Amino acid sequence: MFTRIVTGWLLVIATVGCPVVADTVKPLFTEKQTFTLDSYTTFGGETISPVKVGWESYGELNEKKDNVILITHYFSGTSHAAGKYSPQDESAGYWDAIIGPGKAIDTNKYFVISVDTLVNLNAYDDNVITTGPATINPQTGQPYGTDFPVVTIRDFVNVQKALLESLGISRLHAVVGPSMGSMQAIEWASAYPDWVERMVSVIGSAESDAWSTAALAQWGNPIRLDPNWQQGHYTKDAPPTQGLVNALMLITQHALYPDYFNRVGETLGYKQLEQAPLKSIMDTHSIVEWLTQRAQSRAAKMDANHLLYLVRACQLFVAGHGKNLNDGLEKIQAKTLFLPASTDLLLMPYMAKGAHDALSSMGKPTQYAELEGELGHLEGVVDIQQQSQRLASFLTE
Amino acid sequence: MFTRIVTGWLLVIATVGCPVVADTVKPLFTEKQTFTLDSYTTFGGETISPVKVGWESYGELNEKKDNVILITHYFSGTSHAAGKYSPQDESAGYWDAIIGPGKAIDTNKYFVISVDTLVNLNAYDDNVITTGPATINPQTGQPYGTDFPVVTIRDFVNVQKALLESLGISRLHAVVGPSMGSMQAIEWASAYPDWVERMVSVIGSAESDAWSTAALAQWGNPIRLDPNWQQGHYTKDAPPTQGLVNALMLITQHALYPDYFNRVGETLGYKQLEQAPLKSIMDTHSIVEWLTQRAQSRAAKMDANHLLYLVRACQLFVAGHGKNLNDGLEKIQAKTLFLPASTDLLLMPYMAKGAHDALSSMGKPTQYAELEGELGHLEGVVDIQQQSQRLASFLTE
Repeated sequence: MFTRIVTGWLLVIATVGCPVVADTVKPLFTEKQTFTLDSYTTFGGETISPVKVGWESYGELNEKKDNVILITHYFSGTSHAAGKYSPQDESAGYWDAIIGPGKAIDTNKYFVISVDTLVNLNAYDDNVITTGPATINPQTGQPYGTDFPVVTIRDFVNVQKALLESLGISRLHAVVGPSMGSMQAIEWASAYPDWVERMVSVIGSAESDAWSTAALAQWGNPIRLDPNWQQGHYTKDAPPTQGLVNALMLITQHALYPDYFNRVGETLGYKQLEQAPLKSIMDTHSIVEWLTQRAQSRAAKMDANHLLYLVRACQLFVAGHGKNLNDGLEKIQAKTLFLPASTDLLLMPYMAKGAHDALSSMGKPTQYAELEGELGHLEGVVDIQQQSQRLASFLTE
Repeated sequence: MFTRIVTGWLLVIATVGCPVVADTVKPLFTEKQTFTLDSYTTFGGETISPVKVGWESYGELNEKKDNVILITHYFSGTSHAAGKYSPQDESAGYWDAIIGPGKAIDTNKYFVISVDTLVNLNAYDDNVITTGPATINPQTGQPYGTDFPVVTIRDFVNVQKALLESLGISRLHAVVGPSMGSMQAIEWASAYPDWVERMVSVIGSAESDAWSTAALAQWGNPIRLDPNWQQGHYTKDAPPTQGLVNALMLITQHALYPDYFNRVGETLGYKQLEQAPLKSIMDTHSIVEWLTQRAQSRAAKMDANHLLYLVRACQLFVAGHGKNLNDGLEKIQAKTLFLPASTDLLLMPYMAKGAHDALSSMGKPTQYAELEGELGHLEGVVDIQQQSQRLASFLTE
């Protein structure tokens, strides 16, 4: 029951609601490519030389180069949005249910492209190419650590724009992303309105409010507390692994909902009065052990400083990166679609609803629907196919 | 606007909804008393010698000793439920809005008593008397630290029962408590059904489900990660303060709701693109600073190990401390009233609703209503007076 693997997010997730793909559909394959900028100046005015990021694509770019859909990834995600690298891969990209030939984001029609963000969390994943604190600083021969400049969602967008321009692209049929990806999507629509025809925000928000900024800080706290963190100048031999594991435990629970957790508890035989935690304060319950082990196995490919930088990019986010949210929303020309999850405890539906209502009151074309289910925030990653039809028709409107 | 002080919980809370007390009402005063047991054997079978806890009371015990209402306190609370110790006190006990002469829990009629739990969080508060890891172990002359045995909600109840028996009391008109206090209240009703006539669970639950047990573990994680923790054998000179502060930051946010936080953000002039966090990864947003400072000022009177033991007591909790929840609920003879908060993110209303529905399906008399407001879990502590009328009539039914 709990065996489906979702790359870069949860290692164990319910199979409930998995898409049924017709046997006749040809499997989708992709490969990771590298984009390099010799020099990049951040929104905050600092220069990084060079910047490299990974990217992958599905489907073919047409002659007019007007069939492009950009997929922007979530906090702990990568550019592996769909397909497999080889037939031997156990699982496909995280949104494979909606990206592919004949699917909601139809690769027979669209050239779908996705890019690893700067400071990508999975810095030690062979399939991720990113630039961040774990990168060697050419000036010192050591990892940047916390000498790396603060980067923003706007910077993620600007690097993506440079890549698209290098491919001769100057317009997006749509930009679509879940969670932190939805921040990038709405940022695209606000910062470069001439580019973006359609914007889809899944489990998203148009700004980090005070609540979200505080919650994000909590994710970073265990890393800063870990004695191995060393103010961000740790070595690869002694990284702040326990801090990173504790951060991932928080993130995982924050992205889920009680019903799902309690079903996992049932499969583990969870009981309040388990003997180990009753006998010793050093021991713990089965469900805590489960959560810890999941975090430990995910942490192996991740960098703790990168997590802090992602937290910061999200905290600094307001659509348009200007004076306030309304200024940012005013600039949007794209048709927009908001798909929050009704059980989301991380970015609650009020966030997407607020942006949708504001755009609507400005007379802009916007749609809103909620994902249903017991997975909380994760509905937008692993159960997105429930909105396939709406998504497909939004893309052709 | 944000100046009301709530002892042992949040130092800054909205004044919205504060009770208006008629000038004619005489102020309520109380004093802390000590109850000592030479020896106490825990639910887990370990012996602690001696055990001391503090207690206070409001109103007079009648001759028949049948007018007793026991108030059981929340996780970070104390037995200071109402009144002041002296006219100079800035604030009264946390439920002063409903406990006092002529109030919902009318001290003209009832003898109201409250007891500091074992392992009380506020170990260094002059007004708290408790026994826990911070207590000197008479066998070693050093604090117990993590040699202290695991204790349970049943143990809190058993120590309260010994105190009541020492006063010649053998029956409770009612037991009423918020949050962890509601666990004690329902435990009383299940473990000692002959004692309890009425049980009121405020922002409560009848068990820790897998979700809650995992969430509680997250509160303890920063303490265990702090290098000063030393497996629980730290000294008073070098306690794991940063771990404790991070734990309190988590707890505070978990006990609140976005609307409240965002109003605080407004008063602080919160902006996403504040200069300090944009310029340096070492800096932070005003709202995070606010949350940190609140936690720091609360941490001064608290003991980190005590927090871990309270977490464990809550994790091990199932009403009746038996095989399962239904067994525990079956034993209850009291009339019950459940008052969860509709915006509660910590113990969501489904928990109280589940217990209420189960009791109802067993044919037991039970009532249910929700506290409304933007304070989340804290509605049950600082806005309880909105259910004064229902509470008052439940106590006379």
